[in-house]
Amino acid sequence: MPRSEVPDVVVRRLPTYLMALERMLARGEEVVSSAELGKVTGMSAAQIRKDLSYFGEFGRQGLGYEVEFLRDQLKRILQVDREWHIVVVGAGALGRALVHYREFTRRGLNIVAVFDNDPGKVGLPLGGLIIQPMCELETTIRRRHIEIAIIAVPPDAAQAVADELALAGITAVLNYAPATLRLDSDIHVAQIDPVASLQSITYYL
Amino acid sequence: MPRSEVPDVVVRRLPTYLMALERMLARGEEVVSSAELGKVTGMSAAQIRKDLSYFGEFGRQGLGYEVEFLRDQLKRILQVDREWHIVVVGAGALGRALVHYREFTRRGLNIVAVFDNDPGKVGLPLGGLIIQPMCELETTIRRRHIEIAIIAVPPDAAQAVADELALAGITAVLNYAPATLRLDSDIHVAQIDPVASLQSITYYL
Repeated sequence: MPRSEVPDVVVRRLPTYLMALERMLARGEEVVSSAELGKVTGMSAAQIRKDLSYFGEFGRQGLGYEVEFLRDQLKRILQVDREWHIVVVGAGALGRALVHYREFTRRGLNIVAVFDNDPGKVGLPLGGLIIQPMCELETTIRRRHIEIAIIAVPPDAAQAVADELALAGITAVLNYAPATLRLDSDIHVAQIDPVASLQSITYYL
Repeated sequence: MPRSEVPDVVVRRLPTYLMALERMLARGEEVVSSAELGKVTGMSAAQIRKDLSYFGEFGRQGLGYEVEFLRDQLKRILQVDREWHIVVVGAGALGRALVHYREFTRRGLNIVAVFDNDPGKVGLPLGGLIIQPMCELETTIRRRHIEIAIIAVPPDAAQAVADELALAGITAVLNYAPATLRLDSDIHVAQIDPVASLQSITYYL
């Protein structure tokens, strides 16, 4: 099936399956059933079989999936079987936590530059990088062919930063600012908003 | 409609509507149509009307919604028209960023205690709090009637921390560790995983 025809909700579940498979592989498990994979990911076995069926036949009836094979296939589908270069905009507490987050490099997600508009921060070291001024954003992105950016600035500054990133040719944005960004539809945006996440669980309390 | 019968995906969209309404209110806007609300949240007008219809009649045909009224209703529905007390477990770079994140307090989400198992961190100040040892977790949660916890520990430690939180009576968990937690179904879990968020956009590149 063409990539664009797979429902977004299915694509968003694949990283969870991948994470579970990585953990099984680390424990030396070789084969997994859709029921077992469902148990550790909180999904039904039927849902997992349906989600995976969008991309091909990865298991055999009654035999389950080979863990390493399915892991490799999901990495290929998600295009994380390669290294990505990422810029972070915003060197506040969040930006610092992101630069130091070990799971990124472990998964081939390499933060290669960090930017801030505060002259008091520019030039300071941060996790092996040097905080760069915003005026260097576009040239850095273009020269290093960077496709992914993480926005870690206050909400009021987020749209302006997103516009600059779009101009510089970024095609994927992970937005931590609690603001809905207006960007061309060919730029893929994922949002992380801990306030929204908490608000969607206080509903149930 | 009873709370438990509203689809989770609808509940998860409400904070986005609430955020948009807050911003409109800050700009002095008094009335909004579902089309306008859709434009700023990236949803269709029909979807917004359908989502809101689970909770009652908030607008009038052809007249749209009163921004402040709808904002107040959404806050009431999400139960964020009150203050919540939250504990953070893990005082690493992420825990520190969370404690300093201003949007939490602005939204009535107050981090009132932070815990770590590292003797080198326990006792140190962090954003007006003192980092407490894990042995004080249960008594603090019970004494202060805390219902919400944020897990900001490495993946290998996450399940053990979740189990301790469950024993202490926590009913809502925001999990930042890249691990699927196994918890009783009466504990509500939301997960934030930047690796998964990035992987679900590299798919489209």
